[in-house]
Amino acid sequence: MPDDWRIVAATKKAAQTALIPKEWTITPPPAERTNVLGVPHESGLLSAKELEITELRNVDALLRKLASGEWTSVEVTTAFLKRAIIAQQVVNCLTEIFIDKAVAWAESLDKQLKETGKPVGPLHGLPISLKDQFCIEGLDCCMGYVSWVNKPSKKNAALVDVLLSAGAVPFIRTNIPQTLMWPESYNVVFGRTVNPANRTLTCGGSSGGEGALVAMDGSPLGVGTDIGGSVRIPAGLNGLFGLRPSFNRFPYQGAVNSGYGQESVPSVLGPITSSVSGLMAFTKGVLSQEPWLYDPLCIRKPWDEEGYQLQEHGEGKKMCFAIMWDDGIVKPTPPVKRALDIAKVALEAAGHEVIDWKGIHHEELRDIVIAIFNADGGDNCADVCKISGEPLLQTMVPEAPTQQDQSMASKDLEDEPEGLFGSYKRLSAYELWKLQWRKRALQKDYLDLWVGTKGKTTGRKIDGIIMPMAPYPAPPHGKNIYVGYTMLWNILDNPAAIFPVTTVDQTLDVPVEKHEFRCKEDQLVYEMYTSPELFKDAPITLQLVGMKLEEEAVIGMTEIVSKLVAEYKK
Amino acid sequence: MPDDWRIVAATKKAAQTALIPKEWTITPPPAERTNVLGVPHESGLLSAKELEITELRNVDALLRKLASGEWTSVEVTTAFLKRAIIAQQVVNCLTEIFIDKAVAWAESLDKQLKETGKPVGPLHGLPISLKDQFCIEGLDCCMGYVSWVNKPSKKNAALVDVLLSAGAVPFIRTNIPQTLMWPESYNVVFGRTVNPANRTLTCGGSSGGEGALVAMDGSPLGVGTDIGGSVRIPAGLNGLFGLRPSFNRFPYQGAVNSGYGQESVPSVLGPITSSVSGLMAFTKGVLSQEPWLYDPLCIRKPWDEEGYQLQEHGEGKKMCFAIMWDDGIVKPTPPVKRALDIAKVALEAAGHEVIDWKGIHHEELRDIVIAIFNADGGDNCADVCKISGEPLLQTMVPEAPTQQDQSMASKDLEDEPEGLFGSYKRLSAYELWKLQWRKRALQKDYLDLWVGTKGKTTGRKIDGIIMPMAPYPAPPHGKNIYVGYTMLWNILDNPAAIFPVTTVDQTLDVPVEKHEFRCKEDQLVYEMYTSPELFKDAPITLQLVGMKLEEEAVIGMTEIVSKLVAEYKK
Repeated sequence: MPDDWRIVAATKKAAQTALIPKEWTITPPPAERTNVLGVPHESGLLSAKELEITELRNVDALLRKLASGEWTSVEVTTAFLKRAIIAQQVVNCLTEIFIDKAVAWAESLDKQLKETGKPVGPLHGLPISLKDQFCIEGLDCCMGYVSWVNKPSKKNAALVDVLLSAGAVPFIRTNIPQTLMWPESYNVVFGRTVNPANRTLTCGGSSGGEGALVAMDGSPLGVGTDIGGSVRIPAGLNGLFGLRPSFNRFPYQGAVNSGYGQESVPSVLGPITSSVSGLMAFTKGVLSQEPWLYDPLCIRKPWDEEGYQLQEHGEGKKMCFAIMWDDGIVKPTPPVKRALDIAKVALEAAGHEVIDWKGIHHEELRDIVIAIFNADGGDNCADVCKISGEPLLQTMVPEAPTQQDQSMASKDLEDEPEGLFGSYKRLSAYELWKLQWRKRALQKDYLDLWVGTKGKTTGRKIDGIIMPMAPYPAPPHGKNIYVGYTMLWNILDNPAAIFPVTTVDQTLDVPVEKHEFRCKEDQLVYEMYTSPELFKDAPITLQLVGMKLEEEAVIGMTEIVSKLVAEYKK
Repeated sequence: MPDDWRIVAATKKAAQTALIPKEWTITPPPAERTNVLGVPHESGLLSAKELEITELRNVDALLRKLASGEWTSVEVTTAFLKRAIIAQQVVNCLTEIFIDKAVAWAESLDKQLKETGKPVGPLHGLPISLKDQFCIEGLDCCMGYVSWVNKPSKKNAALVDVLLSAGAVPFIRTNIPQTLMWPESYNVVFGRTVNPANRTLTCGGSSGGEGALVAMDGSPLGVGTDIGGSVRIPAGLNGLFGLRPSFNRFPYQGAVNSGYGQESVPSVLGPITSSVSGLMAFTKGVLSQEPWLYDPLCIRKPWDEEGYQLQEHGEGKKMCFAIMWDDGIVKPTPPVKRALDIAKVALEAAGHEVIDWKGIHHEELRDIVIAIFNADGGDNCADVCKISGEPLLQTMVPEAPTQQDQSMASKDLEDEPEGLFGSYKRLSAYELWKLQWRKRALQKDYLDLWVGTKGKTTGRKIDGIIMPMAPYPAPPHGKNIYVGYTMLWNILDNPAAIFPVTTVDQTLDVPVEKHEFRCKEDQLVYEMYTSPELFKDAPITLQLVGMKLEEEAVIGMTEIVSKLVAEYKK
């Protein structure tokens, strides 16, 4: 009986493996090969056209070819399916595989285009991968919980309906950590997803399967969710683009989740993609379907073309960015500092202004958001684990005994142990109200700080904040300990995009002298970065932050800034 | 010592009375005169021009005269100040009186218009009254709590700054019930506000002072707040227009309140006005100032002119309204039924379609919202009362012994007595999450029901729902027991406007035969309506409901519908 959950998990995993078509299996590279990004290309399984399709890395161009019929949705979907399956064999990034269903959707789109001469919607034919939260009728959506295995979804999540109606092809689902409340991606059902640029490092989480899959070009665009950085961390640790939108801009209705009903700092969904044009295509595509007709919490706010054209930001000509070099809690490591230097020089060279940004209340904001996430004392996640008896994981470190054996599910949580994002402290509703009230006061102070930059720079307020996504490149498994750089914007509810800048450089990114440590995390991060060799090939990305509900402007600015950075490097 | 709070309350009230200029005092009409609407006109205190100004009842026209300089802000503000002070002497609708400050603001606006030839903003010169929640620097904002008397505000509420920046003149503040969580307006500091159409009846609440003041033409436009109907009930019981916007459309930042930090079904602010054009002027005026730069929770969504022009509603030409005749819990009384009949006939005569609307989940939605409001077990309000020792009121019935003597503040609330919106039941944060999760599911069902009308009528979905504001006209004091018709839209978060239809008719609105009672409230309401004579002169209004964040369309539809109803009556 105590092992029942292991049997269910192993059976599910075996069934997943059995879904891989024999002709798409590869001989796996040796374990010593850390960088596996080239494996799909080298595999010989993809035709020249399939390589062209999957390595185009431009969602806009892909959409144009699909809309014109130059490439059919079936061939594009099949190419990405094939490549996703190859990726699975080296980084273990997938959960549900449903080739027939995906191809059938693609066929139907091809047929409609042929019959009417018109694309079905703005995302016509585009294969889109989904984090293992976005239910598809008839398929499991177990989110890495043994307790939820073999419980096929009765309905599509609203996002799935919206994507289908916009002409997209949901074609694969991707791996996550148990509970989603980790910035890495391990669970007892599907196991661990690793970073394709360096398999000794984490791919991040909780949308880690998406990050790894998109980095392998196994998907042109994937959808993750973000409550503390879960879109941005995997986008960032895999060198991709990602967007964390404001609360309720996109339709979350009907997705499975942890912490159901936690509305103080709700999770949001957003795209992870290899091309900056993917951010716009997704945002515009979803909003074109009036998602507020699918989700009662979704904000009625159509795509704002003037916002995207940066009308409130000097048409993008002479902007002012504030750089947050350090959040005052955990000091960024050398490669991250170097990425910020690159951005600053590139922006200034193009005539933009750059000022420094310190921010305020970062520690208290972090403490509040952690208290909110744990306001149920971990009961929600423990309740789910209890169904199967599987353990509630206490670490993402590989082979830690707790991972397999220590079951929080069967423990009484009254002791309030450390875990997930901090200690489990059950709150009363009134205590939660007080936290929310304090949160609002801090949000107001931060807003005033931002608005108060007016006149100090271009005559306008600062146009955006540029800052680290994390204080480090992708850490070794189990060591992604600090999410303050992303989580800040969840509690403040600002939209934030991730864009790639560089990769760890073995000669430039040498460790610096020890500084006075501000806290345990600050020390641990310093000590983790002992040698650039450990982080070989790891991408470095930055974050661009706008004002609440300014998604379009954030996308517009990210296009400009990422282009300047790319050109500067050349 | 136990009487200290009485002394503080009496001193505050005496200070308020002392602020009334001697030359603006009137000889009060006899108590037997129930309808005092004509008192200001008859008082002889207002000049012909002051009567013209205060009885214009068209905010648009008033704004045009102010913007052109035809009428100065000082003369308009003074006229309304005078009339408000007269109203105070018959219906007791005011809290803070600050004549000098209001006139100084008006003077400054007049000066700027003279110097620049341009109005300061879209609300140039317009006096606007404020519920006793919207802090003004240097003035008390005690919200009827003795505990908060003599604690002048250190800052303006965001709304006050926004209004000033739009050119408006905040000129007076208005009465509320203690805690705001009552649909009537009595507190131990300022006493009770009564209905000017019939002083034996309640003016409603919690923005009751606004309702009574605007009905007396003592203000062209006032701002109330609404968490269960507190804008719509006083607008409705006084025969006015009112708007309950969606969550966070307008800036609530910096207002005092009950239940700080309760974000599950937050209070919103909205206008109460004698003219339908006031709804648009206020909404457009506030949004023109980018309130999201003042309030971190405020939604970045400018005035939507296309929404107001009803682009998604057939340009307002042939619309389809669903009429909710009955919410299935409390059956409306005869005059309310008659108002619905009038609306139906008027709409159909103008070529609009009308279908019936039953709705779903009304009882469960009500139970959830009550549980949410009381999730702190009443601790927040009790905590405030404890400071002064004043009683936490248990009833709005006049002269009930509990009102003066029974102090909930000093009682332990562990017994979970009945009170305010139901029983006090303390919840844990996790219980609150579960309620919020259930709320979301019900919201989704309601949304699906609405969207599902597509194709069944005009080809579009229904354009709006028309329904009672309450099941009755203004009830006698202490008897406003059922707010289900308004509160439904707070938990569902739909915008809803109130518009006047008729007044109780002594011959047409006779009691009907008893029906089978569905609950205690249903029976009490039936039994309350024993004779139209009790409700002499009481106005009857209806509610027009749109989809979430469709404020502009709701205003546009309310203009059309209220005009049709008015023309039909002629």
